Amino acid sequence: MTTDHRQFLSRGGAHLHQSAIRRMGTLAARVPDVITLAAGFPDPATFAWTDLRDIAGDLLAGTDASVLQYGPTRGYGPLVEAVRGVLDSRHIHVAPDEIVVTSGSQQGLDLVARVLLDPGDVVLVEEPTYTGAISVFVNAQADVVGVPQDEEGVDLDALEATTRRLRAEGRRIKCFYVVPNFQNPTGLLISPARRCGLLEWAARHDVLLIEDDPYGVLRFEDSAVEADTRAIRADDGEGRVLYLSTFSKTLAPGLRVGWLVAPPVLAERIDTAKQAIDLSTGVLDQRVVYEALRRGVIERALPRLRQHYRAKRDVMEQCLHESFGDQLRWRSPRGGFFLWATLPPGLSDEGLLEHAVARKVIFVTGRAFFVHEDVHDHIRIGFSTPTPERMREGVRRLADALIAAREPPAAQP
Amino acid sequence: MTTDHRQFLSRGGAHLHQSAIRRMGTLAARVPDVITLAAGFPDPATFAWTDLRDIAGDLLAGTDASVLQYGPTRGYGPLVEAVRGVLDSRHIHVAPDEIVVTSGSQQGLDLVARVLLDPGDVVLVEEPTYTGAISVFVNAQADVVGVPQDEEGVDLDALEATTRRLRAEGRRIKCFYVVPNFQNPTGLLISPARRCGLLEWAARHDVLLIEDDPYGVLRFEDSAVEADTRAIRADDGEGRVLYLSTFSKTLAPGLRVGWLVAPPVLAERIDTAKQAIDLSTGVLDQRVVYEALRRGVIERALPRLRQHYRAKRDVMEQCLHESFGDQLRWRSPRGGFFLWATLPPGLSDEGLLEHAVARKVIFVTGRAFFVHEDVHDHIRIGFSTPTPERMREGVRRLADALIAAREPPAAQP
Repeated sequence: MTTDHRQFLSRGGAHLHQSAIRRMGTLAARVPDVITLAAGFPDPATFAWTDLRDIAGDLLAGTDASVLQYGPTRGYGPLVEAVRGVLDSRHIHVAPDEIVVTSGSQQGLDLVARVLLDPGDVVLVEEPTYTGAISVFVNAQADVVGVPQDEEGVDLDALEATTRRLRAEGRRIKCFYVVPNFQNPTGLLISPARRCGLLEWAARHDVLLIEDDPYGVLRFEDSAVEADTRAIRADDGEGRVLYLSTFSKTLAPGLRVGWLVAPPVLAERIDTAKQAIDLSTGVLDQRVVYEALRRGVIERALPRLRQHYRAKRDVMEQCLHESFGDQLRWRSPRGGFFLWATLPPGLSDEGLLEHAVARKVIFVTGRAFFVHEDVHDHIRIGFSTPTPERMREGVRRLADALIAAREPPAAQP
Repeated sequence: MTTDHRQFLSRGGAHLHQSAIRRMGTLAARVPDVITLAAGFPDPATFAWTDLRDIAGDLLAGTDASVLQYGPTRGYGPLVEAVRGVLDSRHIHVAPDEIVVTSGSQQGLDLVARVLLDPGDVVLVEEPTYTGAISVFVNAQADVVGVPQDEEGVDLDALEATTRRLRAEGRRIKCFYVVPNFQNPTGLLISPARRCGLLEWAARHDVLLIEDDPYGVLRFEDSAVEADTRAIRADDGEGRVLYLSTFSKTLAPGLRVGWLVAPPVLAERIDTAKQAIDLSTGVLDQRVVYEALRRGVIERALPRLRQHYRAKRDVMEQCLHESFGDQLRWRSPRGGFFLWATLPPGLSDEGLLEHAVARKVIFVTGRAFFVHEDVHDHIRIGFSTPTPERMREGVRRLADALIAAREPPAAQP
């Protein structure tokens, strides 16, 4: 007898959101020699290999047994303190009981959803938004509602109108999810006025903001200054903002170490939830990150990282100009890893992808970053991972794909 | 204005199960010089420090960029293959699409709960059982129902009666959770007949078994042979059993690497859930574990580990005999990390703990391993972590606590 396993799935288990980015990763692994403009991976050329090897060697000398042992769920104590220091440098001043170390900031998002969201609760998001956040909220069976954004960030009038409409329908709005700095996928840097407006909106309607800030420190110094990236949490006097960040972009994502900041009542709940979820974030990973902070590895790396990714953006933009002329339009990213390009009229992201895969280049379709709206005129191009040579070749292939996608299908013989 | 954060909690977030074991860990960290018989930690003296340092050094040489990069959610490919080999040695023969690498087997449990359990679904457990599993199921808002066990394992008649009663009440039973080998907290090794009976029960009632096997390879060779620890999954021809295991006890828990085996349909759902939960288990950790397997570090360690923990059990039993005479009763553990002792009549686990903390020794109260039943006549003593000297002193303190707990309270002046 074979067992029908589908019957055992929970409602949540049966209706999970598939990450388009992860799907592209699977696709990339299957097509030999594919050039991926789909990834949002940091460039391994920036990893502090020598420092990390030294640190691992010191930690694994065997003089401190706790390096390989179970650890506290909140995080390794000295790392929590060091994270406080990082937060101070971002003008966010918190007590240790407001911090939880997480297994990457993806886990931070999931933890927040676990303690806040009941099925049917509304989560508002700027649209387009990070597909991994959409997955978390959909998997929590929340109702994810997108609010449009313009070049300054989320449209506050639309946000207000959406809020009133949902309230009038008797819906419970729990939070608004925002990536204010060099957003994934648009690369957008939200203006100070919009940040301020979001905080006012949250207070006025008694809801929370979830501020996800993986890219804030990776500003490009030709077009953004530190003040432009000031966290919303830095101006939050009411405990309206849960703040998430990570060491994945500044040190390495293979160490799954991020953190979240939440009011003590919620941080305690998140800690308790995490006990049953994974006991704690990997202790060796946490110790490595702590040592990298203590020895100044990350602090020293930041100026280099900003310069490195800015140079990669420049190469990518040059390639796109050369290969596409004015057929693709985009706003020049002022930081982060992504460029959000608008396709010429009549072309769709999915149609283009089909031709691109045939030419061994991939990107992420813009549609993946929208919740419900069937928008197909954007593509996300990641410039952080490929080498300049691969970028050049990848963009050439993409331009070929675009020509092919525009050609009318050949008449059937 | 201060914000009332409790109002934002979800039903799940408001009713999380607190781990008694984690709570003891917090307590232990606060009391200076406390001797903990509460922990279920592997002995760091058994960690393969030199091998792990060599492995980390090789991996961080910088020749393979993927070591510190994001990785596939299912797990590092060669590690998945190596896990297949480990499973083969346990007579469990599966395809790669039945394996998911998890961030410790605690995450495996949580993932299973996420895809299987709706609020109100029934999960049956042997009682007492692992408190971290109770937490997972309670946090999923399942209804956790305990079934008593005797010296051979779960009472199959009671299981049948409970099943019929719940079915008659119209309840949906999704699964039975079982730790067949050297169970946490009782140290119990379930008999072959009971294993077989569980599998028959699952088929008869069309439900699943969740088999959690962290300790199976740590049998003590004076009283258990390999065949005694044969996984239920090894005899499962119908896909009834989800199997979980870990490298935390055989290599190190500071590397959060475990794995689960599930039928392909469920493994795919678990993979998709994990995408949004933490993207992947730490890649460096996975690479270290893979190298430890490839280089034979774990294989070579097993005989030593069995001998080591057996010797520690012997010391613990000797200490208990010396300090308690026949006041404590227990079945000698045939493997694993735990000894489950019954208190003399009239004494309660919580009363004893109070006196024990005052004397700077701690254990875990038996009550923590029961779901609803208010059973207070057991304590869980972990013999894996403390050195022989600390065991001796800890047990002496515990014996003092027992004397104090038995004395009638002094008359008030």
